[in-house]
Amino acid sequence: MFNITKEQMRFWSPEVRELEPYVPGEQPKIQNLLKLNTNENPYPPSPKVVEAVQAVLENSADVLRLYPDPDASALKQAIAKQQNVAVENVFVGNGSDEVLAHIFKAFFVQELPLLYPDITYSFYPVYSQFFGVKTKILPLNDDFEIVVDDYKQANGGIIITNPNAPTSIDIGLAAIEAVLQANPNSVVVIDEAYVDFGAESAVSLVEKYENLVVCQTTSKSRSLAGLRVGFAIAQPHLIAALEAVKNSFNSYPMDRFAIAAAVASFEDQAYFEAQNQKVIQSREHLVEQLTALGFNVLPSSANFIFASLPSKDAGELAAELREQGIIVRYFNKPRINQFLRITVGTDEQNQRLVDTLKNDILK
Amino acid sequence: MFNITKEQMRFWSPEVRELEPYVPGEQPKIQNLLKLNTNENPYPPSPKVVEAVQAVLENSADVLRLYPDPDASALKQAIAKQQNVAVENVFVGNGSDEVLAHIFKAFFVQELPLLYPDITYSFYPVYSQFFGVKTKILPLNDDFEIVVDDYKQANGGIIITNPNAPTSIDIGLAAIEAVLQANPNSVVVIDEAYVDFGAESAVSLVEKYENLVVCQTTSKSRSLAGLRVGFAIAQPHLIAALEAVKNSFNSYPMDRFAIAAAVASFEDQAYFEAQNQKVIQSREHLVEQLTALGFNVLPSSANFIFASLPSKDAGELAAELREQGIIVRYFNKPRINQFLRITVGTDEQNQRLVDTLKNDILK
Repeated sequence: MFNITKEQMRFWSPEVRELEPYVPGEQPKIQNLLKLNTNENPYPPSPKVVEAVQAVLENSADVLRLYPDPDASALKQAIAKQQNVAVENVFVGNGSDEVLAHIFKAFFVQELPLLYPDITYSFYPVYSQFFGVKTKILPLNDDFEIVVDDYKQANGGIIITNPNAPTSIDIGLAAIEAVLQANPNSVVVIDEAYVDFGAESAVSLVEKYENLVVCQTTSKSRSLAGLRVGFAIAQPHLIAALEAVKNSFNSYPMDRFAIAAAVASFEDQAYFEAQNQKVIQSREHLVEQLTALGFNVLPSSANFIFASLPSKDAGELAAELREQGIIVRYFNKPRINQFLRITVGTDEQNQRLVDTLKNDILK
Repeated sequence: MFNITKEQMRFWSPEVRELEPYVPGEQPKIQNLLKLNTNENPYPPSPKVVEAVQAVLENSADVLRLYPDPDASALKQAIAKQQNVAVENVFVGNGSDEVLAHIFKAFFVQELPLLYPDITYSFYPVYSQFFGVKTKILPLNDDFEIVVDDYKQANGGIIITNPNAPTSIDIGLAAIEAVLQANPNSVVVIDEAYVDFGAESAVSLVEKYENLVVCQTTSKSRSLAGLRVGFAIAQPHLIAALEAVKNSFNSYPMDRFAIAAAVASFEDQAYFEAQNQKVIQSREHLVEQLTALGFNVLPSSANFIFASLPSKDAGELAAELREQGIIVRYFNKPRINQFLRITVGTDEQNQRLVDTLKNDILK
């Protein structure tokens, strides 16, 4: 970025001068690159998605000029049906990042601090700063799991990613229920961006807990990262807070293509399950091969793995993979700077990674 | 909405309990309704828009699963070219409502109050409350024009819609330059949602004024309300503040369909100009006919008109039009509760409005 003079800075809101924005995984525009850095699905979305957008196009003269349904009711209905909840339990947004932003504003701007783990989605501190949310960060244990007792202190909210990123570890619903029960006066958000790759969803607990919000995305398990559709499931008194926030920020966040495409995806349950099974099988095979090469791989319930190689610095390894045209995500942060976060690709892509490691880097 | 108990309200952030969200114009799903209430364009977008989305679909297996360019560079380039500015002068967002939200956070959270007129876009007070922006509201004069001298007091920012909504009045660039010159230390935002229907854009002033932000949308003059694409033009030190805010809220607000479709629209200048001319001609014809029926119509530079009928209460008139299947926008607010905001439709649609007034309501 170019330099902004102190004089030019006078135009910025003072609090915005201090922001440290989120840095997404890079999206390089290089041919023949193997991109295993942003946890995208290696398979395309349901063919029904393409048909649904096609149908919008066929009608485009009549509909593109018109605002979309500000409430995206058709999408809420499709999600409700697929998730086996009522429409009143569903909130939708422009990617789960926007849903999470609204969650921070709706629930976490409190006297007491928001609790979350030291190793988790790196957007949480960014939202906290953006909305002036106080935070208390709690270390995961040495196995990278939350210590449930830590979440029994006074707080203004709790957010836990499950399976966690970038660790890939699923803590299980028993731990989540323990946190919910210990905090009857705080909203507990379970961010389930990766839940469809083998973990159990907390959506089944929404009916029981009036303080639970579950957040999911279509970007990973539905192969729709290019579309920007996320959602939250909760009891109606919590959904109402999200709607109040959304309607104070942007009335029409979901465009007509996004609504139609996401509806089609939620209606094609068979495709969804089959693709997720393929990713899970590929992951298990990749873990086996990397373990055979000497990697320690954390137990993964996600579409990525978190792996370290005792014999080699992870930062160097990431750089060497990059030279070979393979991008993985490396976080130069305390406790995890000897790990690589590697997205599970197709079997062919994973094999290219394994072969490159074996033949070019670790030879 | 259902009732939320005081006990359930404990989960909401205290500041969110006080929010008064924006209420968009209704989007009823009724057949044969003439919808002249949300300032949509009566004509379809450029056929090139459909082709561009088609091209994304042809490639969908490869691209929908991948995150879009978080920076939407292709769209910024297309806008820069069409607006005759540099790419560094362009910011894009999920509809101009999101762009405006980011503008409020980026520039207006100041010690001193934001200044804006009493009659203008009703989302401004909502954003102000959402971000904790102090405001000072300045009355328009009796001709519904801003009083430039009012904008020479100490302030933390200024936002002016031009042409204004719901009045349709264009104050001209001379008045805007006077405001810019009187406020060298404040950001002055000109919200030009309707500028393409006959007003002169302040984009030509961006190079000269380091405190100017111009905001526009594709929803009206580009017939893409269904798509959600808005943008701002300003000098790079102001664009940088918007990017810092955007990247602290949602890294990927623009989906792949929206980017591709909007690029195609900006590249089809001939279509854009021709459609806008059609709307302007239809507006002039509609104004003539309504004037002949006894309406007072404010001078419009927008794709809507603001009209009152001395012989009839505007609220009643809106209700009677509705009974006839024609929806216009009525604001039950001081100073404007005897006006109707009527979107300019096709000549045929406008004729239906005029005939209904003449034959059914005012007979």
